[in-house]
Amino acid sequence: MQIHGKHYTTIWLTQDDDLQIIDQTKLPFVFETVTLKSNEDVCRAISSMQVRGAGLIGVTAGYGVYRIAKNFCGNTNWQEYMREECAKLLKTRPTAKNLSYALDRQAKIWQNNSFAEALPLLKQEAIAIAEEDIRFCKKIGEHGKTLIKEIADKKNGQPVNILTHCNAGWLAFTDYGSALSPVYTAFDAGIPVHVYVDETRPRNQGASLTAFELAEHNVPHTLIADNVGGHLMQHGMVDLVIVGADRVSRQGDVANKIGTYLKALAALANSVPFYAALPSSTFDFSVKDGVKEIEIEERSARETEYVTGEFYDNTGTARIQEVRICPYQTKGLNYAFDVTPHTLITGLITERGILEANEQAILNCYPEAKAFL
Amino acid sequence: MQIHGKHYTTIWLTQDDDLQIIDQTKLPFVFETVTLKSNEDVCRAISSMQVRGAGLIGVTAGYGVYRIAKNFCGNTNWQEYMREECAKLLKTRPTAKNLSYALDRQAKIWQNNSFAEALPLLKQEAIAIAEEDIRFCKKIGEHGKTLIKEIADKKNGQPVNILTHCNAGWLAFTDYGSALSPVYTAFDAGIPVHVYVDETRPRNQGASLTAFELAEHNVPHTLIADNVGGHLMQHGMVDLVIVGADRVSRQGDVANKIGTYLKALAALANSVPFYAALPSSTFDFSVKDGVKEIEIEERSARETEYVTGEFYDNTGTARIQEVRICPYQTKGLNYAFDVTPHTLITGLITERGILEANEQAILNCYPEAKAFL
Repeated sequence: MQIHGKHYTTIWLTQDDDLQIIDQTKLPFVFETVTLKSNEDVCRAISSMQVRGAGLIGVTAGYGVYRIAKNFCGNTNWQEYMREECAKLLKTRPTAKNLSYALDRQAKIWQNNSFAEALPLLKQEAIAIAEEDIRFCKKIGEHGKTLIKEIADKKNGQPVNILTHCNAGWLAFTDYGSALSPVYTAFDAGIPVHVYVDETRPRNQGASLTAFELAEHNVPHTLIADNVGGHLMQHGMVDLVIVGADRVSRQGDVANKIGTYLKALAALANSVPFYAALPSSTFDFSVKDGVKEIEIEERSARETEYVTGEFYDNTGTARIQEVRICPYQTKGLNYAFDVTPHTLITGLITERGILEANEQAILNCYPEAKAFL
Repeated sequence: MQIHGKHYTTIWLTQDDDLQIIDQTKLPFVFETVTLKSNEDVCRAISSMQVRGAGLIGVTAGYGVYRIAKNFCGNTNWQEYMREECAKLLKTRPTAKNLSYALDRQAKIWQNNSFAEALPLLKQEAIAIAEEDIRFCKKIGEHGKTLIKEIADKKNGQPVNILTHCNAGWLAFTDYGSALSPVYTAFDAGIPVHVYVDETRPRNQGASLTAFELAEHNVPHTLIADNVGGHLMQHGMVDLVIVGADRVSRQGDVANKIGTYLKALAALANSVPFYAALPSSTFDFSVKDGVKEIEIEERSARETEYVTGEFYDNTGTARIQEVRICPYQTKGLNYAFDVTPHTLITGLITERGILEANEQAILNCYPEAKAFL
């Protein structure tokens, strides 16, 4: 993706083999890259959401394991060291399946090889996970584009209005994104699109990240409060909802950013198609009933009690500032995700194609899931 | 209601006959009263939301007409003057029915009396509208308390968890409130209650006003992002939803703060009782289908693009600051209300009792509505 005209992915190794990320906590106002060196840097980057989004959490974990391995000083037992450090990495965020997906892939390497043998293999695997992420997201875009095209064909040149929640664009992956990949693919193919962007409180990933991405790509878009989508759907102003996913059960229940469930209810009530877009790495075939079984991360109440944004101080200097929005006695409660039952979901857009959100369709498309029955 | 231990209503005439309000745009951080003198002061107080909430908009309009009448200088035609100035007042906010309700009551006076005759009658009527508002809200509290009591009786001393959206407390009326009046009445009667407060973007009336009210009254409460309520209801964490209303059709469709509709969908999906609380002055019997017929106010996009809160600057001074939350190229869209169809509503809590949200029940309870059939 382009930022200020230059091509970027969200994470990369420099020529000196340093691990670099875009610090997403400062977007859209400040574009800054950060080098992750210590094991703590890697964990903090994920837990503090300098990197976030299902795919990117996974890819960062993949590269993170390589970075952790490079930090091995030889004073302790190699496998014990890796077990301990990777356990810390696993604990940074509980909901996104992609985290354990990447850690599991890397574990097969460090569990079966000495430090010296493992190091180049871990690097190779980290790059492979990132490249797979890019490839899958690109395919999701191609499949999803057909849905947008079908709607566009009926609209006589009027833009297709797509509502999305949170950020499931290229900033949530290595490139392209999941929910936004179909949007970019359609837009690049000349199909007129317009995106309603849910601001996505408490962290405002819609206002700060999705809006930033769409603005950089010149895609027409409108920011709305999270409260607005129901009204828009009730009045025929939304043709299609596409969201991302953090963990999807084998019957198609979708854990995604808190508030997704409310939009799915409104979509069903108003006959608006509702899709979740995800690469295979987001499936958790061991889970059947997502509402009952998926662990929902509870984050700091502070994220609810404060909002971060930019203002110009009286010297004319731009400042990023956190402001409190409620009385000091009031406490917040901050669940980061919710689960949308598969019965509310029109379909899942994956790199293998678009499938219905039910166990049979998922097992047909992912025969490997049968091992979990 | 008490603020810092002193009794207040939201609007009053001083001993010198000056019209005073609490400036609600500065809460919860600064408690400040403002005197409305010019006709522009009155209009601006409503349009800028220094006063807001269905009931208080109506009561302010009632007092506002009296204030406007007092400003009559005698150089022009009395009735022409009043017609022009009251038309400006009517335009300040389009959705709340209470505005035209109060203006219509006052119009009967100024249309049928000379300036000298009208002036004391307008004052009397303004006070009558405010006193009716207080009386009705008190009755709503008593009726609504029975719902909370019924749930409490089944919970063995566990608090009744009530979710509310926006602010429909005493700050939205003259005193007591609509949606919060049952909460206060139950709390004061020793029934254990706990309120989930939707922050209610874009203007955050939940975070700034409802949380303030509940904190001042020592009612246990928790602030949540607007995205969270669906998840809470899905997991049995909400016993009851009570919201206010800005205009209610004769079949029971409820126009209320944007986002109410999403919570109603979640309540129905999870069998959580969903009530709207309102005084009669909020009914618009001339409207049958609220979704099709009620005008929804579109406010400035700026409210969506910015958030206001407090921070301490580097001199340790508290500052109220507006911060931008999205890129400067991005534009917001800001519908202030939505309409919840009556089929999603368990019941309406009014001063006349609790009724089902359908035309027959409303006509039975409000025979005066038959004139609009």
